[in-house]
Amino acid sequence: MNNFEFYCPTKIYFGKGEHKKIGELVKKYSSNILLHYGSGSIKKSGLYDEVLSSLKSAGVNVTELGGVQPNPLLSLAKQGIKTVKEKGIDFILAVGGGSAIDSAKCIAAGAKYDGDVWDFYIGKSTIKAALPVATILTIPAAGSENSAFTVITNDENRYKIGLPSDFLRPVFSVLNPELCFTLPPIQRANGICDMMAHIFERYFTNTKNSEVGDKLCEGALKAIINNGPKVIKKADDYDAWAEIMWAGTLAHNGLLGCGRQEDWASHGMGHAVSAIFDIAHGSSLSIMFPAWMKTVYKVNLEMFVQYAVKVWGISDSIRDDKEAIILKAICKTEKFFKSLGLPIRLSEMGVKESDLPKIAENALGAAGGAIGGFKQFTKKEEVAAIYKTAL
Amino acid sequence: MNNFEFYCPTKIYFGKGEHKKIGELVKKYSSNILLHYGSGSIKKSGLYDEVLSSLKSAGVNVTELGGVQPNPLLSLAKQGIKTVKEKGIDFILAVGGGSAIDSAKCIAAGAKYDGDVWDFYIGKSTIKAALPVATILTIPAAGSENSAFTVITNDENRYKIGLPSDFLRPVFSVLNPELCFTLPPIQRANGICDMMAHIFERYFTNTKNSEVGDKLCEGALKAIINNGPKVIKKADDYDAWAEIMWAGTLAHNGLLGCGRQEDWASHGMGHAVSAIFDIAHGSSLSIMFPAWMKTVYKVNLEMFVQYAVKVWGISDSIRDDKEAIILKAICKTEKFFKSLGLPIRLSEMGVKESDLPKIAENALGAAGGAIGGFKQFTKKEEVAAIYKTAL
Repeated sequence: MNNFEFYCPTKIYFGKGEHKKIGELVKKYSSNILLHYGSGSIKKSGLYDEVLSSLKSAGVNVTELGGVQPNPLLSLAKQGIKTVKEKGIDFILAVGGGSAIDSAKCIAAGAKYDGDVWDFYIGKSTIKAALPVATILTIPAAGSENSAFTVITNDENRYKIGLPSDFLRPVFSVLNPELCFTLPPIQRANGICDMMAHIFERYFTNTKNSEVGDKLCEGALKAIINNGPKVIKKADDYDAWAEIMWAGTLAHNGLLGCGRQEDWASHGMGHAVSAIFDIAHGSSLSIMFPAWMKTVYKVNLEMFVQYAVKVWGISDSIRDDKEAIILKAICKTEKFFKSLGLPIRLSEMGVKESDLPKIAENALGAAGGAIGGFKQFTKKEEVAAIYKTAL
Repeated sequence: MNNFEFYCPTKIYFGKGEHKKIGELVKKYSSNILLHYGSGSIKKSGLYDEVLSSLKSAGVNVTELGGVQPNPLLSLAKQGIKTVKEKGIDFILAVGGGSAIDSAKCIAAGAKYDGDVWDFYIGKSTIKAALPVATILTIPAAGSENSAFTVITNDENRYKIGLPSDFLRPVFSVLNPELCFTLPPIQRANGICDMMAHIFERYFTNTKNSEVGDKLCEGALKAIINNGPKVIKKADDYDAWAEIMWAGTLAHNGLLGCGRQEDWASHGMGHAVSAIFDIAHGSSLSIMFPAWMKTVYKVNLEMFVQYAVKVWGISDSIRDDKEAIILKAICKTEKFFKSLGLPIRLSEMGVKESDLPKIAENALGAAGGAIGGFKQFTKKEEVAAIYKTAL
């Protein structure tokens, strides 16, 4: 096990009806907040009215900023930073999925910084303070409700970059599985893939002797694999949503990677695809992860055999050779994503072979020239070859 | 899954050599601290000198209070509270195992309270503030380094009572598996049993649909079962200690119980045994847990079959009946404890049948008249019957 630091101070309020006490929870921190949300689905579902009513009852002054898109844009976050500074707002409540929360975190960091907030994403500056952010989660997927991460797309240069800082851990997050009942099937599927990918990035490792981490990853993956299809089939399956929502939060709060070398090449490659083609994050991962697995499994056959046996229950009988077992597991992974209704090839999304060099360049560029911890890639041709496998 | 709240803000510094930066870590919080520790084993191991030197280099003023015993006593904590108040100390560093840390938490709560700190333990008052506590862990066992709990024994009435408060979560904990190398075999074994017991208390539940929790518990238990015997065999097996130390911390920080009804009868019964006979906490649990399992398994056969299959790998072939599978698992549990060198019967520790009513009375008395969530016991005769099974 490697040395590590772990810090996850977000308070979780989990379960039925929990969002109804949002006013009382927020009031402990602030009476002048920014309410940040997406496309208006929370208005259709009635959540918006419930939240606003609870905040008003608690005497909280609310400034609104809606319109966050999937793959949230720097331009909107900058508008939020301006508003927050002008109005002396000292707390941000994000209501929605990872996009609304990531955008809120960007605003929170920018509000305490005199320069351009993009500086943080490109490593030109380091976050030293941020406004407190809280969340009401409506899409179990990104794990941003409990993570240190924000991922923002720069609308000018189409770089989509992730940034971690402990200052960006939400102070609290409300997770009510009932709020997922109105999600359309593709968002449910994207979310399931996203949380599995967060675990994959931490699970596939060359670090020896990290058995606790192995077993936590395998357990969380199995719970997602068992419950994901249930929420695809039945939008209001509370019990299955509760498993998915809790697993999605644990998948990305850092716990499962403690003491382990992590990878993150698939995320990097997926970000580039999303940034250029505006493909949903989860769908970029259902495409890129199987291609990545096919490319790298020979680096550590034992790790991938373990994946096959422990996660997919494939027998490791000595009659099978290791590669056969591994390829069966990768095939099962792909089939699982497909069964959820997700794409598993770039070509399904209209990407052509001629686009691949440009996407590979974006992936390496946004990552500063190298992606991957399990196996590192620094050459455009290598990355393009993975995209080719995913085509 | 039940509604739940989860809050665990302790920052973890894990790995080789991490304790050497203690001065720098403490200095961020305070320059006038109480250093709290046990019997002096940290002096023999050289840890004491390293800690003191690091604190002095950082310019931290240190007042010492050693002498914490296993099953830490209220009287010493009260002495600490007096010292802290007199010297305007605003931070407590506990170096040791659960006893030193629990005692430190008691001092931290008492330092911010005008009344008798025991009031908190008997429910007469609620903790509303506490001094910050940090820890350097030397005995993986109690999980106090990351938990909300303090357990103290009142030397006057021999009640041993546990108390949770989020104010008692350490601000940070340093976990260096190397510091475990000097532990004597019985302390290693007690620690392993203690952390398994913390998981058992959360694992055995009647709550339906808590699959994420099930799998996290099973994974942590298996990692402990795989690595526990290694540290018994080889005192300086760093890799195995790292698994044990990390599993022990996760076992009791609250994560594994999220959304689940918990039990805690075995801890209550073990506390009574420890309070009256001064038996180590881990040993009280290796005795009480198998007896508790034998008493309650019929309440939820499915849960215990799952334990047998998932934790001990017992085949759930239809040729076996459920009770046979369960009894085999309980037998394996007992044998595992025995293989570590732990007692599994009260009689081994000199307890006689005539002592049982008194212990049962203590267990119920300290718990306010009822113990157990999986199955509740309120009658002295019922509790005495469990002790009889353990005799």
